[in-house]
Amino acid sequence: MAQQPTALLLGTAPQGGALPADWRADILRAIEARLEIVSGLHDFLNNDAELVAAAQRSGTRLWDVRRPPRVPLFSGAAWDAQQHVCLFVGSDCAVGKMTAALELTRAANAVGRRAEFLATGQTGIMIAGKGIAVDCVVSDFVSGAAEQLVVDADPRSDVLFMEGQGGINHPAYAQVTLGLLFGSGADSLVLTHSAGRDEIDTFGTPILPLTELIALYERLCGTVKPAPVVGICLNTLGMDDDAARRAITETERETGLPTDDVVRFGPHRLYGLVAERLQGKTLPLGSRAMAAHLL
Amino acid sequence: MAQQPTALLLGTAPQGGALPADWRADILRAIEARLEIVSGLHDFLNNDAELVAAAQRSGTRLWDVRRPPRVPLFSGAAWDAQQHVCLFVGSDCAVGKMTAALELTRAANAVGRRAEFLATGQTGIMIAGKGIAVDCVVSDFVSGAAEQLVVDADPRSDVLFMEGQGGINHPAYAQVTLGLLFGSGADSLVLTHSAGRDEIDTFGTPILPLTELIALYERLCGTVKPAPVVGICLNTLGMDDDAARRAITETERETGLPTDDVVRFGPHRLYGLVAERLQGKTLPLGSRAMAAHLL
Repeated sequence: MAQQPTALLLGTAPQGGALPADWRADILRAIEARLEIVSGLHDFLNNDAELVAAAQRSGTRLWDVRRPPRVPLFSGAAWDAQQHVCLFVGSDCAVGKMTAALELTRAANAVGRRAEFLATGQTGIMIAGKGIAVDCVVSDFVSGAAEQLVVDADPRSDVLFMEGQGGINHPAYAQVTLGLLFGSGADSLVLTHSAGRDEIDTFGTPILPLTELIALYERLCGTVKPAPVVGICLNTLGMDDDAARRAITETERETGLPTDDVVRFGPHRLYGLVAERLQGKTLPLGSRAMAAHLL
Repeated sequence: MAQQPTALLLGTAPQGGALPADWRADILRAIEARLEIVSGLHDFLNNDAELVAAAQRSGTRLWDVRRPPRVPLFSGAAWDAQQHVCLFVGSDCAVGKMTAALELTRAANAVGRRAEFLATGQTGIMIAGKGIAVDCVVSDFVSGAAEQLVVDADPRSDVLFMEGQGGINHPAYAQVTLGLLFGSGADSLVLTHSAGRDEIDTFGTPILPLTELIALYERLCGTVKPAPVVGICLNTLGMDDDAARRAITETERETGLPTDDVVRFGPHRLYGLVAERLQGKTLPLGSRAMAAHLL
């Protein structure tokens, strides 16, 4: 406590999101020291009688970042948003979708665009100060939660960068990915991939070749509301700059799409290459949906 | 009360699953008459202080069919199941997936196969007496819930027919569909479609041509654990028998797959045509996953 902290951040989420038993003593000690407890766990601290009682005694707050607000079912309202919606999709979990979305938001704002970052996971919410942890939303309502983030975005913004989750062929989490894909009403996608990773983390199922992955995302969207992949954020962590440049060039050649590591080399070059495609709105498919939008 | 009922069944679920305000008085009257209240709503009656108090006073039970049990995350355990897992997938909601799954279970058992029906929605649970309403499960855990149904199935059974949910390009509910597709570790799929329906209910987005829909389901599975569509249950409700037979023949020609309306004409013919393909297990993709299964 020598640094006079004001909060204890439970920033890692163990698989399944339960509270590890051996954290309890430390959390109680932090509560006694009147620290705010900021938690990204699936297990809500506010449902834990012992922690709630301790927080009440010391007058501090338990913030369950992942606790979702009540959201309506998906209605199609996202299709009416004025902003261009760009969703980050990935080849796996933990490839850098959130970071890439934050970086492109920064690059857009740097050139005078009104861009907003929409957080869909606990770390993004801690950074943005708001958002919805969609993996914690009851499954029927995931697309509704994504839609709500779009509907509630600043109406003065003109492009919304939505943080993605999971990957479309992730054995455990693909359902969250697809809920975001349809619920966001995305107009464009940015694909994020970790260079050199070839298996879905912990399951050993293969990461698809990027061209196949792009085709799969575009084909799925294309059955509801078409959205092209406009660029690729390649995570080259652990490579030296030369190897990173080679991986980027190779990915550009393989996919024909602008590619960069927006952390290593900054987001401005990639943003410049995709900016033109982050404009305007696409329409959902379907006669009634189309008609409603053409009225 | 002249018929001396023992239960009040709230069998319809309004969009979003909330308790309609004008049902409350009737529910309270039923509780006073000591009826068990069986509810399929997203809003759990057991969270409603007034209803809980009334039930305690009259000594009756509120059964929230949709309240999911606590399930672990998807682990890959479904890949180790000994039974052949057949998942019902659809072109939309409310096309007859549950009914088709129940009918094929009946046909399999009629010829001495040990088949079990796995319920994933509230009506299926009311019929089977057990199951998990996966649309009510927190989204991260949907694939884990599907897996749990497989893991918990009768080990003496040799084929599991899992009720499906939604449709893979349903704007609002596709995430539930995909969670079941990957979580069940399906070995085969049966496609269910309502003849003549060409738009996703209430959204107006098109129902894909069946050959495209089949390709999309198989392509998605094929990135994790391949599962072929082995037959088609065509719902011909509202047609006369001749028109129904024509629609079935047309669908068989279009897709090259055995097709029938298992309600109108009984499930035995279709079961006979697909029975051979409801055997054995497929392996998930990926070196580690494969190795684990080959040990």
